[in-house]
Amino acid sequence: MITTVTLNPAVDRSYIINDFKPDNKYRVNDVTVTVGGKGINVAKTASILGEKINATGFLGGLSGDYIKRELVKLGISTSFVSIKGESRNFTAIIDPINKTETTVNEEGPFVTKSELTTFIKEYIKILKYSKIIIASGSVPKGVPKTIYRDMVKIAKDNKVIPIIDASGKYLEEAIKAKPYMIKPNIQELRDLVGYGLKNEFEIVHESRYICKQGVELVVISLGSEGAIFATQEKVFKVKTPNIKLVNAVGSGDALVAGIATAMIRNYCLEEMLKYSVACGTANALEKEIGYVDRKKVEQLYNKVELLRLV
Amino acid sequence: MITTVTLNPAVDRSYIINDFKPDNKYRVNDVTVTVGGKGINVAKTASILGEKINATGFLGGLSGDYIKRELVKLGISTSFVSIKGESRNFTAIIDPINKTETTVNEEGPFVTKSELTTFIKEYIKILKYSKIIIASGSVPKGVPKTIYRDMVKIAKDNKVIPIIDASGKYLEEAIKAKPYMIKPNIQELRDLVGYGLKNEFEIVHESRYICKQGVELVVISLGSEGAIFATQEKVFKVKTPNIKLVNAVGSGDALVAGIATAMIRNYCLEEMLKYSVACGTANALEKEIGYVDRKKVEQLYNKVELLRLV
Repeated sequence: MITTVTLNPAVDRSYIINDFKPDNKYRVNDVTVTVGGKGINVAKTASILGEKINATGFLGGLSGDYIKRELVKLGISTSFVSIKGESRNFTAIIDPINKTETTVNEEGPFVTKSELTTFIKEYIKILKYSKIIIASGSVPKGVPKTIYRDMVKIAKDNKVIPIIDASGKYLEEAIKAKPYMIKPNIQELRDLVGYGLKNEFEIVHESRYICKQGVELVVISLGSEGAIFATQEKVFKVKTPNIKLVNAVGSGDALVAGIATAMIRNYCLEEMLKYSVACGTANALEKEIGYVDRKKVEQLYNKVELLRLV
Repeated sequence: MITTVTLNPAVDRSYIINDFKPDNKYRVNDVTVTVGGKGINVAKTASILGEKINATGFLGGLSGDYIKRELVKLGISTSFVSIKGESRNFTAIIDPINKTETTVNEEGPFVTKSELTTFIKEYIKILKYSKIIIASGSVPKGVPKTIYRDMVKIAKDNKVIPIIDASGKYLEEAIKAKPYMIKPNIQELRDLVGYGLKNEFEIVHESRYICKQGVELVVISLGSEGAIFATQEKVFKVKTPNIKLVNAVGSGDALVAGIATAMIRNYCLEEMLKYSVACGTANALEKEIGYVDRKKVEQLYNKVELLRLV
């Protein structure tokens, strides 16, 4: 069982509006409503790939009810902690004419101390039947900066493999507890190391430095360029096959879902890297965030180029 | 009991975003979520004015659940028909720097024939304990153009006073059944009569013409200018007191709520007109749509100027 943790899930609403400009009144019929938040994207993709998934985190209010209901529809089991606050809404306005994407992201609810305590108890229970725990994305107000570090520690104490996809202080703290894997993008790595990172050499250097601190696998996502995968012994650059991009949002989450799925299936390192990039790429072929076509994943797998750097 | 009918209610979300521009990513904490739709605004205002209100129409999905829950919180009894579709969402982005207001209004759900039949049955039941029926606002897909006409006819057959605040074909049809009152704004009156309406004389002429077709009271709302009230015998121009405007959205609905409240309380025509304009004006003093301060309504009442035109 793979468990995904989404501390700050969202209801995502996407509107297609031609020639979108401020101060206008728009009446739209092209609206897509989905459940979102990075951990939930991971859960969706890994579930489509055929894995048994449990999703946890915090859910509140009617947005929370909606998220839970949709996950159950997708065959994902849920063990979210109910909170008094309302789960956040995320609105995207896509303008196909001017090729703009305007997003309005609510900060999300406040989580109380007692809700946090309930979550940690629930988390410890979940670990008993999980092989991998993936915690992704932003953290709601009220939750301490050390949350992911604590979760990594508890997971390792319970022999569960922790994967963290976070940024800023949350990532910095998480690394101290030595998660199995982290997946910052270039900007998140820059924030972490505190300087510009001008070339591949510097990215590799910093990734290996994180590995030396005890993270087994450091994945630096490079968007359409693919990703750099670093372990203590080996570093690979994995190049994405050329595709006709539809929507790249969620591709990093699909990559993480691919890694976890590959681990459950005991793929070797090289197979795991190729498979995860195939998953990320397959997601970019789809309009829906977190959706992949399994057949396309298999086709793409054979087109992923693995380049050993170290 | 006053019953308000909202066939296409909404969840309204307002975001305050400084210097809002397309193609940016905004993270917001200033969000106001309320229940909306013209009929629901009327229900809110009339309820605050102290009347017993029942709200009906169609509600669907989790947005529908939210609307119902909020109305119950406000002490409004509800008898909505549940539909399979999802009630619509309305998003407003207010930019205080550039003084713009950008709105994205979903079209709303599709109503099936059997849901419509259920509504009409429910409507007939509701009429038994209603004195006034107010049907306001847009109509969801699947509902025929004659809906308000049918509702007016059924109301009159049951000795219930029908008030219609609609536009376009829906209003045109409704007039054929002779509702007690209609309340188009200037643009809606133009659409109805099919020409420009350059001056007050033409507005009065057309309003009286509608009265001659059997509508007792025709109210033409003129925004901050007030309103023109026409009956078969008399025509008044009612001028809004000077105020420091906060948010004029919903003022027309508050005016309708004022009319219905005045009718329940057996005010004479002149009192009714002054009271309704005081309600509309009081609403424009508040940030929240559909909210009025009763004390302010009373204060404004004495400042409303009644000018007899005919």
